[in-house]
Amino acid sequence: MKRLAILGSTGSIGAQALDVVARAADRFQVVALAAGRNAGRLADQVRAFRPSLVSVSDAGAARELRERLGRDAPEIAVGDEGAVAVATHPEADLVLAAISGGAGLRSTAAAIEAGKPVGLANKESMVLAGELLMARAAARGAAILPVDSEHSAIFQSLAGHNRGEVRRLVLTASGGPLREVPAERLAAVTPAEALRHPNWSMGDKITIDSATLMNKGLEVIEARWLFDVEPARIDILVHPESIVHSMVEYVDGQVVAQLGISDMRGPISYALAHPERVALDLDPLDLARVGRLTFERPDPRRFPAFTLAYRALEIGGTAPAVLSGADEAAVAAFLSGRLRFDEIAAVCAEVLEAHPPGPVTSVEEALAASDWGQAEAARRAARR
Amino acid sequence: MKRLAILGSTGSIGAQALDVVARAADRFQVVALAAGRNAGRLADQVRAFRPSLVSVSDAGAARELRERLGRDAPEIAVGDEGAVAVATHPEADLVLAAISGGAGLRSTAAAIEAGKPVGLANKESMVLAGELLMARAAARGAAILPVDSEHSAIFQSLAGHNRGEVRRLVLTASGGPLREVPAERLAAVTPAEALRHPNWSMGDKITIDSATLMNKGLEVIEARWLFDVEPARIDILVHPESIVHSMVEYVDGQVVAQLGISDMRGPISYALAHPERVALDLDPLDLARVGRLTFERPDPRRFPAFTLAYRALEIGGTAPAVLSGADEAAVAAFLSGRLRFDEIAAVCAEVLEAHPPGPVTSVEEALAASDWGQAEAARRAARR
Repeated sequence: MKRLAILGSTGSIGAQALDVVARAADRFQVVALAAGRNAGRLADQVRAFRPSLVSVSDAGAARELRERLGRDAPEIAVGDEGAVAVATHPEADLVLAAISGGAGLRSTAAAIEAGKPVGLANKESMVLAGELLMARAAARGAAILPVDSEHSAIFQSLAGHNRGEVRRLVLTASGGPLREVPAERLAAVTPAEALRHPNWSMGDKITIDSATLMNKGLEVIEARWLFDVEPARIDILVHPESIVHSMVEYVDGQVVAQLGISDMRGPISYALAHPERVALDLDPLDLARVGRLTFERPDPRRFPAFTLAYRALEIGGTAPAVLSGADEAAVAAFLSGRLRFDEIAAVCAEVLEAHPPGPVTSVEEALAASDWGQAEAARRAARR
Repeated sequence: MKRLAILGSTGSIGAQALDVVARAADRFQVVALAAGRNAGRLADQVRAFRPSLVSVSDAGAARELRERLGRDAPEIAVGDEGAVAVATHPEADLVLAAISGGAGLRSTAAAIEAGKPVGLANKESMVLAGELLMARAAARGAAILPVDSEHSAIFQSLAGHNRGEVRRLVLTASGGPLREVPAERLAAVTPAEALRHPNWSMGDKITIDSATLMNKGLEVIEARWLFDVEPARIDILVHPESIVHSMVEYVDGQVVAQLGISDMRGPISYALAHPERVALDLDPLDLARVGRLTFERPDPRRFPAFTLAYRALEIGGTAPAVLSGADEAAVAAFLSGRLRFDEIAAVCAEVLEAHPPGPVTSVEEALAASDWGQAEAARRAARR
């Protein structure tokens, strides 16, 4: 029986993780849940999974939760400290870090400092402070188990093979909803068009990041730290069907890949159950029915955002955090109609080059750099 | 430095193995080579790799080899005993079993009895006597490392994952040169047409087996014993580009696959260097250039041969050996114009059902069953 603490339980990844837990009730026990303000959903989760500790973002949500649960309420903690209490719950055998955005960074870091194995779904942890957190995880003996489908695929393709024999990581990208839109049309793309993702149903921010390919760039940064492979050996391959989730090429030219349907419960369950697997009754991958898989190189002319991630890694230090923050503001400006689609990458590039980079020696520094990037991008977006 | 004994060194797999050795001269040393009658090629190999023992099929070839090498000649052994001496060479750390056909069975078995790790390229060993040889390998602690590209792919896709969590093995098949030929045209297919393989350059027998899909059926039998997975959980998937070499589906629905270009030096080197890899300067897999991979179900109406392998496993005992022998004779009859293409499977099916099955308790019994199948198929082919 593995005991789980789940950060971000009412979000998409958190809810799917609890679905996995429900399907394998003999394998998992939920000891702690951290959520934001969705007291209704969290109350349902508490009734179903009976954690001993929950956390919400503020006192209002805590009150609502207590009212909903009455005397069935577990211990309720609040705010950043609450999330940290969940992340370091003494009974947790594994912490699923699935709070999205920079908000997830402190609790992820706390779980690592507590020496807990971490199922990492919080992309920003690696983008903002990957080098620092991996060093801390090594020092504390905390395993980092990736939950992103691409990184889970690479993790699964590395299992049983020698890290020193890796020649290249290949991250696949769906190419997003605008893959076939010609360059001259991109300036006129509306938020509604950019939000129409072909394969995955995700939040707005990540769907826009998928359309610009910034998402894939941020995943390159994640992969760089998660797997300790330098950026020049991490490639992006556009694969619209999203069946090959990512690949590893070895020194003998042979490639190991992980494939599957587009269902996050696969990679989530792999991280939760590692080093075992959970029998899941999901649709099997039927390649004969899929018929064909296609591949193409990403186009840096139409989708320059992914190249900024390589540039940020080249600058190093706080630069990836700045890029992440800048992108957050630029995407928000695009979604609210204040920035054109093609200006997202342009603003991010400007902010990245305007930033005086420094080292990341703490989570606070990483968050400050991200905030700087966000403010700077918002300022530049407003000026356009 | 790993010391190798290579059975079948002048054949296609043997020669490619020596090419791998030449590319990684600091990793491998050749201590013994067994060949057939190609004394000229073997003499070149002896000069290049300096084994201390070689074996040829008969006294004539031994004489020719001695003449060619003069005082540079190593110890030369002859016949089945010679091959067995190579297979059990006391200095060999690994034996590559690459003699083709039933002729390879005795030396493979001898290597296993000597407790040597075996790189297995001799398909017939597993088809004729897989259950027996795997039991002997377990008893003697001899690892069996598959060299066939499909089985190497499965082996690589199993590494680092739990055998008990395998749901399904998927063997890919190119579909061969006749994949798109309509049913009514198959009776008129000539040997020249059937020998035109799209991806792999191989011997005549295996190329015809690829056209009938019998080859894939025999690989199902191999996989059944190599990986101890029952036939109902081994699928065949036609994949004309031959890039995905085979796959493993796990209980969580996730699939791990091995991909690569069509170059046998990949799987050969994996078996030779296991558990390490050899850096090979082969063309990398460039999926963006390949562009697309396609998949379809095999058609049992046009290519019933593969279904006979499942039937042979169902009958059990000597039945797979009989099928293998029958196929050998039927393919020979087709190549010499005495049998129509569509009659290959028909004759094999007749022989399989006419055979009174018995257990395989020795290599000799397996070879006798194969001989029986061969004679019976030749007789039936002559009658048509």
